[in-house]
Amino acid sequence: MSEPTIESLRKEVDAINLQLLELLNKRAALASQIGKLQTSQGMTLYDPQREADMLTALQMANQGPFSNATISALFKEIFKASLALEEKEARAKIVVQRKTPDQNTVIELPRGVKIGDGSFQIIAGACAVESFDQMDAVGEVLASEGVQIMRGMAYKPRSSPYDFQGMGEEGLKIARKVADKYNMVVVSEIMDASQIPMFQDYVDIFWVGARNMQNSFLLKALGKIRQPVILKRHFAATLKELLYSAEYIASGGNARIILMERGIRTFNEEVRNTLDIGAVPLLKMESHLPVIVDISHSAGRRDLANAFGRIAKASGADGLMVEVHPNPPVAMSDAKQQLFFDQFRALMAEIKTVTRPEKAY
Amino acid sequence: MSEPTIESLRKEVDAINLQLLELLNKRAALASQIGKLQTSQGMTLYDPQREADMLTALQMANQGPFSNATISALFKEIFKASLALEEKEARAKIVVQRKTPDQNTVIELPRGVKIGDGSFQIIAGACAVESFDQMDAVGEVLASEGVQIMRGMAYKPRSSPYDFQGMGEEGLKIARKVADKYNMVVVSEIMDASQIPMFQDYVDIFWVGARNMQNSFLLKALGKIRQPVILKRHFAATLKELLYSAEYIASGGNARIILMERGIRTFNEEVRNTLDIGAVPLLKMESHLPVIVDISHSAGRRDLANAFGRIAKASGADGLMVEVHPNPPVAMSDAKQQLFFDQFRALMAEIKTVTRPEKAY
Amino acid sequence: MSEPTIESLRKEVDAINLQLLELLNKRAALASQIGKLQTSQGMTLYDPQREADMLTALQMANQGPFSNATISALFKEIFKASLALEEKEARAKIVVQRKTPDQNTVIELPRGVKIGDGSFQIIAGACAVESFDQMDAVGEVLASEGVQIMRGMAYKPRSSPYDFQGMGEEGLKIARKVADKYNMVVVSEIMDASQIPMFQDYVDIFWVGARNMQNSFLLKALGKIRQPVILKRHFAATLKELLYSAEYIASGGNARIILMERGIRTFNEEVRNTLDIGAVPLLKMESHLPVIVDISHSAGRRDLANAFGRIAKASGADGLMVEVHPNPPVAMSDAKQQLFFDQFRALMAEIKTVTRPEKAY
Amino acid sequence: MSEPTIESLRKEVDAINLQLLELLNKRAALASQIGKLQTSQGMTLYDPQREADMLTALQMANQGPFSNATISALFKEIFKASLALEEKEARAKIVVQRKTPDQNTVIELPRGVKIGDGSFQIIAGACAVESFDQMDAVGEVLASEGVQIMRGMAYKPRSSPYDFQGMGEEGLKIARKVADKYNMVVVSEIMDASQIPMFQDYVDIFWVGARNMQNSFLLKALGKIRQPVILKRHFAATLKELLYSAEYIASGGNARIILMERGIRTFNEEVRNTLDIGAVPLLKMESHLPVIVDISHSAGRRDLANAFGRIAKASGADGLMVEVHPNPPVAMSDAKQQLFFDQFRALMAEIKTVTRPEKAY
Ligand SMILES: [Mn+2]
Ligand SMILES: [Mn+2]
Ligand SMILES: [Mn+2]
Ligand SMILES: [Mn+2]
Repeated sequence: MSEPTIESLRKEVDAINLQLLELLNKRAALASQIGKLQTSQGMTLYDPQREADMLTALQMANQGPFSNATISALFKEIFKASLALEEKEARAKIVVQRKTPDQNTVIELPRGVKIGDGSFQIIAGACAVESFDQMDAVGEVLASEGVQIMRGMAYKPRSSPYDFQGMGEEGLKIARKVADKYNMVVVSEIMDASQIPMFQDYVDIFWVGARNMQNSFLLKALGKIRQPVILKRHFAATLKELLYSAEYIASGGNARIILMERGIRTFNEEVRNTLDIGAVPLLKMESHLPVIVDISHSAGRRDLANAFGRIAKASGADGLMVEVHPNPPVAMSDAKQQLFFDQFRALMAEIKTVTRPEKAY
Repeated sequence: MSEPTIESLRKEVDAINLQLLELLNKRAALASQIGKLQTSQGMTLYDPQREADMLTALQMANQGPFSNATISALFKEIFKASLALEEKEARAKIVVQRKTPDQNTVIELPRGVKIGDGSFQIIAGACAVESFDQMDAVGEVLASEGVQIMRGMAYKPRSSPYDFQGMGEEGLKIARKVADKYNMVVVSEIMDASQIPMFQDYVDIFWVGARNMQNSFLLKALGKIRQPVILKRHFAATLKELLYSAEYIASGGNARIILMERGIRTFNEEVRNTLDIGAVPLLKMESHLPVIVDISHSAGRRDLANAFGRIAKASGADGLMVEVHPNPPVAMSDAKQQLFFDQFRALMAEIKTVTRPEKAY
Repeated sequence: MSEPTIESLRKEVDAINLQLLELLNKRAALASQIGKLQTSQGMTLYDPQREADMLTALQMANQGPFSNATISALFKEIFKASLALEEKEARAKIVVQRKTPDQNTVIELPRGVKIGDGSFQIIAGACAVESFDQMDAVGEVLASEGVQIMRGMAYKPRSSPYDFQGMGEEGLKIARKVADKYNMVVVSEIMDASQIPMFQDYVDIFWVGARNMQNSFLLKALGKIRQPVILKRHFAATLKELLYSAEYIASGGNARIILMERGIRTFNEEVRNTLDIGAVPLLKMESHLPVIVDISHSAGRRDLANAFGRIAKASGADGLMVEVHPNPPVAMSDAKQQLFFDQFRALMAEIKTVTRPEKAY
Repeated sequence: MSEPTIESLRKEVDAINLQLLELLNKRAALASQIGKLQTSQGMTLYDPQREADMLTALQMANQGPFSNATISALFKEIFKASLALEEKEARAKIVVQRKTPDQNTVIELPRGVKIGDGSFQIIAGACAVESFDQMDAVGEVLASEGVQIMRGMAYKPRSSPYDFQGMGEEGLKIARKVADKYNMVVVSEIMDASQIPMFQDYVDIFWVGARNMQNSFLLKALGKIRQPVILKRHFAATLKELLYSAEYIASGGNARIILMERGIRTFNEEVRNTLDIGAVPLLKMESHLPVIVDISHSAGRRDLANAFGRIAKASGADGLMVEVHPNPPVAMSDAKQQLFFDQFRALMAEIKTVTRPEKAY
């Protein structure tokens, strides 16, 4: 009898492949049936003890050449695939996940302002509300440049309890007044679920800061309001974590969420955070939500504004956020990064030189 | 006339040094006087506009060879030093900062339990309360090993809203019951300031998780309670940020805080987080608060428990935190890192082989 | 006599400021004289023992209110500023440092190819030379798209000694042949100084890989050749480290260097490295050298090519580097990131939609 | 006919599991046979085109419920497992990989010095050789404390070309002389393969610095020498990369390698690098090579020496490396981290208080 050749052995492998295929699908169909029964009986789909029992049985039956470790690893993959299938309908419930290539959430705001409609929106204003005069000066410049969305930050999350913590409700009142004067919508950072009713009197967009990105109590509460939410990525959060945080809000009923990339903490020395511009196309691939880029807290310095503005627009983002102040060196927070008025006007001119792509990736 | 030598020029420099010294101290004394007047008039000490004016005057007067940039930089240092002096008394108010080499906060708990008294405390228990039986099984093993502080986690902060979120108040009741049965104190993670009154009915130590480390609303609220607080470092927080978060609690009136190092997010692949053991001596240098090491969430795997236990004790920490479960593979959270009972007993034996130093640094 | 007011005290401070200014400049002039004498006598400018002695003298003379620590800190700043002044001429020797706003190195290559002249150059080709046919297929597509600079990598630095290490000199011959056929210049990675003479027979541009970015022996040797050098940033190098590595080459006599940003190692999960696009404007601010962006090894995946191409061009970079392969899934290295020919053509069309700014920052 | 129950469906799944098991092992046996034929014919085991063909066939045959993507993913796992089996004998060639729990490489050096024999070795000395007197002063202190292995660094890899680059061969002569005088062995950093013959005249242990950790030319050359090699982890290298670099040396014939953990680059501010102490047990699990801890370049500051010394010993490392200098503030490199003689003596006393475990994990 002749020796087997590579060719002949490969034919045998091909045949086994098809048998494995059939069995895997048969198994999947059974698992799906079990899943439906479990769901109807209110049981969770994932049953680690059942999996442990199956693995034990397989290891006892295993005669090699695959080791028990390899068999366990392979079957764990099969279990996982089956579970994934069972969860498919469940998964359809992941609200923030992109379902089709051209699904894009458009956030509609008062005064006809939109985010995510293909335009490149500018959100601008001082780091913090410091006085009416300061806000009024900023508002005038913003309005003259056609900005529609104004920062009106009245509660400042600060690392130190001894730093300026914001003007509080008084600041919200100023922000609202200035926004109305210049026909803009206003966004403000909320720190705690207990502030929601008060904020609803003043602001058009709620802002969740990096430090609260995984505050599930606050996120769940924001799932119950009617205003849109800007969700700022924590400087050490993965994109998956950011999307799950958005899901905390969306699964509660409020899917009007804007994701914000703002730089991540790395070993770099020249910048406050490292702008992770790749996050824009990646978030767009994964989710239908609008994505904007914070070019102030990423760079942490004024002289990168033009470059970061161009980059943000070229990346396919739906807009950018930038801090502007009448006299940045004496600002009560983020003095190094807020733009002088002239710099802000230069930025607005600069970003006009770059085309926003229709598709981010 | 002869050429100046390096030697002769250096003598001239020495003389100028002494004149600079005198002027700097004279200036400091004046600044201190101004600071006192400002404080008495309720003004803030830091006045950026005044600094800007002084710099402008200096730059106009400057004739070189130092450039205006250099002069600005040097005077900013002088301003900073003066401000630091003015703030010295203010700084004395930084409650968590170490004032003397042998200042060490000792946290006294019910049932005579202490943290920070030179002993090496073990905080142990399941990642989450899952049932009375599960907690009872854990409690029995802990008690048999002399553990005095039990985890009783009933609210689980999870990345995904679809993951197990904890048993809630029911879980707290179970934790309290088991702790009482085995004569232990119980610690539990609080998620929101609104939970404080309910938690006070059940727990001996409040736990602030990584995701809430910079939730200033929660921190301020915990400054008003009578129970001690374990403050867990966020996986991307600097030590300075951790200490400032502690200060949010302490400045409110509750200085009974235990700092917890728990690993930081890096590029490492084998572990969940990278244990930053250097944080222990560094925190001890900077603060008088007790420091403990979470050897479970840092490693994220069972097989490092013995090594991390030894390392934690040798580092000078005041204790460690470890997760233990009757059947880790089927745990509802952190299944890969919770210890089997046998492993926990081995850990307890292992750490006895290492001496805890009297001084961490 | 009346109490001093804040106003009157501030006037006294102003007067002292001016006296300090005068003394600081007097001191600087003396230090500068000393520096010239030292330089003429071949002594190094920085003399830590002299500084230590001065600090000791000052501390002994100090009577407060500034503490000795503060006085030391302030005088260290003064020493540093003086040293900086002394080193100013020395610093003029930092070859790669930008001296004027419009200084821009233009690299001229054979066949009239230029990098840094305001154009946006494309460097493209397979990750590694695998065969003549493979390179010929790539070359044809590159030429049809107007690419002038081809990758011709014959030595592959790999993490594992058991991975494909490149075709060696045979690969260089193929690269040269294909480049000549399609009228392109060729770039290839050099691994060791001993390869220089051999490389000079085949390649137009030398490439220093990330793993050799701080191999000072190789860098110094490349300072002696006539060909330009692409210097790839190590994935964990700061910009300062990259510029110093360039200076190792430039200070040897070869200032024809192209800097390459290629992504940094962070906690991100979706990409091979995190594209640090901020490095482009920052490097441009600091240096007159051309900067290009590696959009393949940063992303590590094909589907980000268009976005990263747009971003690179908008950032003000002088070009990009991208990997292209006739059949990426079977490539011998970097199979996940090399572009199919169609994708490469789409990329070339995409980057035409973005304007390159004249100035990066 | 009755409805199927969860129980009855699970029985069907169990039966399919066993059929899958049988087919998987049958397939593995065939793949193994193919692998042997391929090896005998000099073909590589991994054939991506063959895999692509099989996946295409399976996708065409697939009728669900598993999607083509799921089927591809599952079969890729099966391919990978088969390949792993085929490579098992190949894998036996990974020299540095631990094969049995009690396999531990012991490095034997001249004068009876050993590393890896269960003792805790101290490698100490100045950052750089600066003069005979300096080295002699250090040598005397080391000898009086029983140190057997001395640093004798004559070539300094520096970020800037203008920093002190070491004394060169003259420095090696001094190091050898002092080592002989005090009956110690000497280790020195090699920068380039061309230096090997010269180094062999002077040093007992070769040291590969972080910047050369992935210089495969140098690593391969060190595989041919008879002296042991200390391989320092790059500050951004994964443990896998470090082990593969060791394999470059070991696979060339020199398996006398000592791995060195030295801190990784993170966002931490207080230290030069973040000591990754978890690397010690993890490297010990994966490899039989000795592991030592650099407590100087990790901390970058003197005041952590005692803590890091204790931690290193408790971690199960085979020793530590520490820098000592007669007058650290005026050292020509690493002035902030080198220990004063008194501090070094305190360190030696401190580490005696900690027990080294027999097993690191
Ligand atoms: Mn801000
Ligand atoms: Mn847990
Ligand atoms: Mn490549
Ligand atoms: Mn050193």
